[in-house]
Amino acid sequence: MIIIGEKINGAVPAVGDAIAGRDADFVRHLAKIQSDAGAAFIDVCASVKNNAEVETLKWLIDLVQEVTDTPISIDSPHAVACVDAIKFCKEPGLINSVSGEGDKVEVVFPGIAATKWECVALLCDDTGIPHTAQKRLDVFAEIMSKAKEYNIDPSRLHIDPLVEMLCTSEDGINVAVEVIKEIKTRYPAVHVTGGFSNISFNLPARRLINQAFAVLAMNAGADSAIIDPANQDLMGMIYATEALLGRDEFCREYIGAYREGLFGHKK
Amino acid sequence: MIIIGEKINGAVPAVGDAIAGRDADFVRHLAKIQSDAGAAFIDVCASVKNNAEVETLKWLIDLVQEVTDTPISIDSPHAVACVDAIKFCKEPGLINSVSGEGDKVEVVFPGIAATKWECVALLCDDTGIPHTAQKRLDVFAEIMSKAKEYNIDPSRLHIDPLVEMLCTSEDGINVAVEVIKEIKTRYPAVHVTGGFSNISFNLPARRLINQAFAVLAMNAGADSAIIDPANQDLMGMIYATEALLGRDEFCREYIGAYREGLFGHKK
Repeated sequence: MIIIGEKINGAVPAVGDAIAGRDADFVRHLAKIQSDAGAAFIDVCASVKNNAEVETLKWLIDLVQEVTDTPISIDSPHAVACVDAIKFCKEPGLINSVSGEGDKVEVVFPGIAATKWECVALLCDDTGIPHTAQKRLDVFAEIMSKAKEYNIDPSRLHIDPLVEMLCTSEDGINVAVEVIKEIKTRYPAVHVTGGFSNISFNLPARRLINQAFAVLAMNAGADSAIIDPANQDLMGMIYATEALLGRDEFCREYIGAYREGLFGHKK
Repeated sequence: MIIIGEKINGAVPAVGDAIAGRDADFVRHLAKIQSDAGAAFIDVCASVKNNAEVETLKWLIDLVQEVTDTPISIDSPHAVACVDAIKFCKEPGLINSVSGEGDKVEVVFPGIAATKWECVALLCDDTGIPHTAQKRLDVFAEIMSKAKEYNIDPSRLHIDPLVEMLCTSEDGINVAVEVIKEIKTRYPAVHVTGGFSNISFNLPARRLINQAFAVLAMNAGADSAIIDPANQDLMGMIYATEALLGRDEFCREYIGAYREGLFGHKK
């Protein structure tokens, strides 16, 4: 499982305050705990006004790189800002994200074509988030066609099927499961990712929904996740699921992660 | 999900002590909390010497029936004791269990044939627990053939595929998932059940394995479980999974169970 650590996000009030007050230690700490918890990428989302975004991303990226070699995930709704921030990173990382909206793909794909950078792609377009599996797969096909054009290997893409809130769904996560399975059938090397917490919006005891969703998404084929790796129960659930799905012989990874303190030790 | 409450089991040291000391309040309390937590059956397992078993089952069953109308699950490795204890129950309940071993089916099935009693059937036989899916399905076919002979409807059977410990498994729970899916394909009305805790034997942070297993078992088709309904995280995970699988429109059951205090309120 590829863990994209989500904690450094300016839209979270405490993080937004730290960014506004340039609290470097706060950001370094978030980077360090996520790296220690096994993140494969550290996501940085400035969530500031456009004219301050690239500068803020640079400040965040520099701080993360002071405390860890874990690659950066540059998180912005602005494709140009994503590409601009690549130059601040010591190692190839992840762009989060493109989609079928506007010219995002046309801006980002040429920017990473000749690099080893990976990219998250959301299955929405200018009409919003499609309701049917078929229409999401149409967006997927379009993105894969563009990726081929720019010679970006499927293994560099993390597709986010955009799971809808469970509280307004009439058929649970069936559409998402269908989309995930079809993506992995068509392109086994493509990663399937997603935030594992939007699903539970507006519901009580959200952590239980999020955890159960993680298990079902992994069972369908998800192999990447945008989560808080310091959430021990969720991380333990992910290791447990890998073992249950037969991907961790004799539970060696599960037991190793437990011994390293990654789960089962605190809430 | 049909919850079979497992707490009144003499093999659990505190319960064994309560049985030895005839601590009626202790047993009544276990019955009450499981009934309040949504159990469909209250399992009673005496775990005493053979010559004291039926008498002990009677004592337990009487106590349970003093505090709740929830039907009894008579739990014993001795088929004769199971059938003997039926007469103590006010309402039809569940026999836990028969299997392909010895003459269990031949003792229990005639005993419940003309009643509304249900029955758990384990997919093992005189050779032990078969390692392959095919051999477990052979035991299943044999049990279904006997059920037909005694005119016991498939909807009265709870089949336990007997999931092996994860720590010694090389392919996770793939065999169990295959067996569950095949059972539900052949007999959609049959219930698939199991203990959701044996799976994690010998592993750390067992609750995470058990919870993830519950999600995957339900996804495969399990619709019955022998668990502790007072385990709020596990119960919440079960309600969450029903909603995620599209069996709880707009999460009405999930939200209702939360409001009743069945999960999300304490650990």
